[in-house]
Amino acid sequence: MATYLITGASRGIGLELTKQLLELPASKVSTVFAVARNVESDAIRQLVKEYPDRIYPVSASVDDTASVQEAAETVKTKLSGHGLDVLVNNAGIAGLTPGSIKDMEPDQLAQILDVNVIGTQRVTSAFMPLLEQGTQKKIINMSSGLGSFAYATRTATMPTDAYIISKTALNMLTLRWANWYSDAGFTILAISPGWLKTDMGNEQADLSVEVGVAEVKRLILESGREQNGKFLNINVPETEGTNYQFEYDGKGIPW
Amino acid sequence: MATYLITGASRGIGLELTKQLLELPASKVSTVFAVARNVESDAIRQLVKEYPDRIYPVSASVDDTASVQEAAETVKTKLSGHGLDVLVNNAGIAGLTPGSIKDMEPDQLAQILDVNVIGTQRVTSAFMPLLEQGTQKKIINMSSGLGSFAYATRTATMPTDAYIISKTALNMLTLRWANWYSDAGFTILAISPGWLKTDMGNEQADLSVEVGVAEVKRLILESGREQNGKFLNINVPETEGTNYQFEYDGKGIPW
Repeated sequence: MATYLITGASRGIGLELTKQLLELPASKVSTVFAVARNVESDAIRQLVKEYPDRIYPVSASVDDTASVQEAAETVKTKLSGHGLDVLVNNAGIAGLTPGSIKDMEPDQLAQILDVNVIGTQRVTSAFMPLLEQGTQKKIINMSSGLGSFAYATRTATMPTDAYIISKTALNMLTLRWANWYSDAGFTILAISPGWLKTDMGNEQADLSVEVGVAEVKRLILESGREQNGKFLNINVPETEGTNYQFEYDGKGIPW
Repeated sequence: MATYLITGASRGIGLELTKQLLELPASKVSTVFAVARNVESDAIRQLVKEYPDRIYPVSASVDDTASVQEAAETVKTKLSGHGLDVLVNNAGIAGLTPGSIKDMEPDQLAQILDVNVIGTQRVTSAFMPLLEQGTQKKIINMSSGLGSFAYATRTATMPTDAYIISKTALNMLTLRWANWYSDAGFTILAISPGWLKTDMGNEQADLSVEVGVAEVKRLILESGREQNGKFLNINVPETEGTNYQFEYDGKGIPW
C-alpha cells in the first residue's frame, strides 16, 4: 500500500521504473505520482489507460522551484491526509563537452548542476512534509558510478565532465540528507542504475533499460534503514557473451 | 622568477597569500596578479605601494565570464609573451543554512556553486593558454577538508551544506583537470588550508590566517608532478595548549 513519486517519469529509467512499479500488485504499490515536464506523452497516456486508479501524472520541471512547489500541493491534495512513502529523484540531464575539460562551458556546467543537483534539492525539500507523514520515509537519488572518485582514473578522458561533477555533488547532497535525517527514521541513499540503453545512455551501453531498472526496483524495495547514506550498485553478473564496461556486482560503490 | 595569479586576493586567505608570496625574493616570485572584485581596497593599495613592480591588481568577478576573460586579456598584455606559471583559484564564498538541509534554498546552493565551482572553471579555462606557456604549469584549487566524504559523519549537522557540496564538486573538478592535463606536464591539485580565522572562518577557527597560509604557500612551492591530482593538507602539529577541531597532519586527504 505504498505511495511513490518519481521525477523524470516520462522517459528512460523513470518511465520504465514507473511501469515496473505499477506491474506490482496494488497491495504493494498503491499509487505512483509520475512527475515530468511533459506528462502528455504517449507512454504516460498508455499507463494512465492501463492503471487509471494508480498512476497520477503531475507536470513539473525540477529546475523551476515554483512548479515543484505547485506539484507538492497537487500531490498533497490527492493524498488527502496520507503521506508519501517513497520519493525517487530520477530526473536528470547529461551533455557532452567537445574537446577537453578546458572547453566545458560555464553555462553547460551551470545547467547540469541546476537540474541534477539543485533540482534534487528543490524536489526533496518540497516533498519532505509529505514524506515525514509517510510510513517508509525513503528517498532514492538516481546517481551514477561515474560520479565516484574511485572511477576517476578510468573515466579520465570521457567527455562528460559536467555530468560527472554533477553526480559527485549529488552524492554529497545525498549523504548530507541521510546524515541529517538518520535519527528521524529516514532511509536516504543513492543508486547507480548502471549504463543503460536509454536515449541518454545510448546503444553502446552495457544493459537494457528493463534489466537495469528491474535491479533498481529491487534495491528500492529491499533497502531499509541499514542502507541509509549508502551508494548502491545493481547486481547483474557477467555471463558468456557479455563484456560490460563497468561492474555490476551488487556491492556498495565508494563515494 | 615565477609569475603567480591569485583570485579572491583582496581579503582573507587570498590577501595573506599574496603578501607572503611578495615577501619572497623576486628571484623566486617575480610577479603576483592579484585578482578581486574590488582591487581598490586599502590592503591592496598598501601592497602596491610596497611592491610597485611586482603586484598587479586586476579587477574581475569569478561569477562573471566576460570579466574573467577580460582579466585574461589584461594579464596576457602585461606578460607580453611570457607565460603564467602558477594559478591559485582561491576566490570562494560560504553561507549558513538556518535549520536543516531541508531549508537550504535552491538560490543559495546555486550561488555558492556558481562562485566556488563554476568560477574556478571560468578562471582556469580563461588562463589555460597562458599557463600552457608557463614553465611550472601549476594550478592550485583552494578547497576544504569539509568537502571530503571521509569527513561527512563528523560534519553531519554543520549548517554549511551548500558550502560543503560546492567543495566536493570542486574536488571532482580538480581531479578531472588533473587527469586531463597530466600528460601535458601540469600539476593540478587541491589544498585544504585548514580552518582559519578569516571573516569567513570566524574567531572560533583553529589557526591564524598567517599560520595556515604559510603552510599553503609551502605546499604550493614544494608541490611537483607527483602531487598532480592530490588533495593536500597543511602540517601544523598540535602543541601544548592547542585543541584543534580538525587534523593538520600534512598527509593527503581522502576525497
